[in-house]
Amino acid sequence: MKHSGKFIVLEGPDGSGKTTQIGRIEAYLREQGADFISTREPGGVLVAEKIRSVILDVDHAMSGLTECLLYAAARREHLLQKVIPALEQGKIVICDRYVMSSLSYQGYGRELGEAVLDINKRAINVDGTEYWPDLNIYLDVTPEVGLQRIHAKDAGREINRLDLEKEDFHRKVREGYLRLSREYQESFATIDASQNEAEVFADIKRVLERLLFEGPQQEFS
Amino acid sequence: MKHSGKFIVLEGPDGSGKTTQIGRIEAYLREQGADFISTREPGGVLVAEKIRSVILDVDHAMSGLTECLLYAAARREHLLQKVIPALEQGKIVICDRYVMSSLSYQGYGRELGEAVLDINKRAINVDGTEYWPDLNIYLDVTPEVGLQRIHAKDAGREINRLDLEKEDFHRKVREGYLRLSREYQESFATIDASQNEAEVFADIKRVLERLLFEGPQQEFS
Repeated sequence: MKHSGKFIVLEGPDGSGKTTQIGRIEAYLREQGADFISTREPGGVLVAEKIRSVILDVDHAMSGLTECLLYAAARREHLLQKVIPALEQGKIVICDRYVMSSLSYQGYGRELGEAVLDINKRAINVDGTEYWPDLNIYLDVTPEVGLQRIHAKDAGREINRLDLEKEDFHRKVREGYLRLSREYQESFATIDASQNEAEVFADIKRVLERLLFEGPQQEFS
Repeated sequence: MKHSGKFIVLEGPDGSGKTTQIGRIEAYLREQGADFISTREPGGVLVAEKIRSVILDVDHAMSGLTECLLYAAARREHLLQKVIPALEQGKIVICDRYVMSSLSYQGYGRELGEAVLDINKRAINVDGTEYWPDLNIYLDVTPEVGLQRIHAKDAGREINRLDLEKEDFHRKVREGYLRLSREYQESFATIDASQNEAEVFADIKRVLERLLFEGPQQEFS
């Protein structure tokens, strides 16, 4: 790494509480007087937003790997234009999703396998340096809990075929995340996100403190 | 290959006469009663056209590798939606530019190297089969001749710094093509495109006849 910043990514399925916890992390970092930015792809980067709109526009009319290539292109521009400049200014970068989302959703969920890693390694390689996060904070919930939370307002509804398909997909995504948490264990902090908000944040705060305030050689497990 | 069609790609710089020669190839194939389509990326494929418009829209505001990822995404959709269906119907597919254009322009011209090949190999891999052309017809001209032809209408104009930069770029592109013609020699036919139209087409016709009408085990050199 050619910078003095810290690159921290929040990972996990919808319904895991990422948005809420990012809000708490931001409040905490402000309290600490830390110099940080909080972002998510496409993050206001023009090219990345245009790419994102192509993905959303045409949706099911494209193959999984095409989508993967487009996400990788958007990721690279967001990285180049927003993340790296902040890291080079020594800032903490908090980012909602990054490579692990592609690996879990597309690699495992859609079963695109190694292609997703290969393409992403190319996308995050800038002048010979691969920009991996210093820390992936993975909010782990079962698909049941995640889907329950998303559908909380609509809980009386019967479960249909689409829900079951989705549940199977989300089960593969979670298995993916859990495998990644072992494979990349030096940068993964797995948090039990079935706990309540305050408990989840207490766990996040512990790993953040270790990374940010206790020197460079930390392990998260 | 899981199909009985033939996949033929025209390659070469602007000014090499590709468009003219494709017109002649079409006329020739019609004469022969051959079942063919003639296409070019993005080729009327909705997703690919949207991607192409992102590339053209933002142009210089994106990194070379981002552009490479976007071209690869557009290539894949054009391949999936247009080229493969035609090949599977046993058709001859004539395509204006394909992977070799990315390798020469981005890999060699922009010096992005191996990344371009890796990404393209992923993009053209469909269910475990990489869709390489049966034949790359490469129209070889020096940058001097190519640029001269492009600027023919405007020949009195002085050569400026941009022209020289372009000439250096096009020299690297041509060196790229020539190296690729050795590396992929089993599928490359290099045609001297500094000849006149009729001579160039006579050479093209010879390699086409060998591929299409003289059995499956041909070599082009």
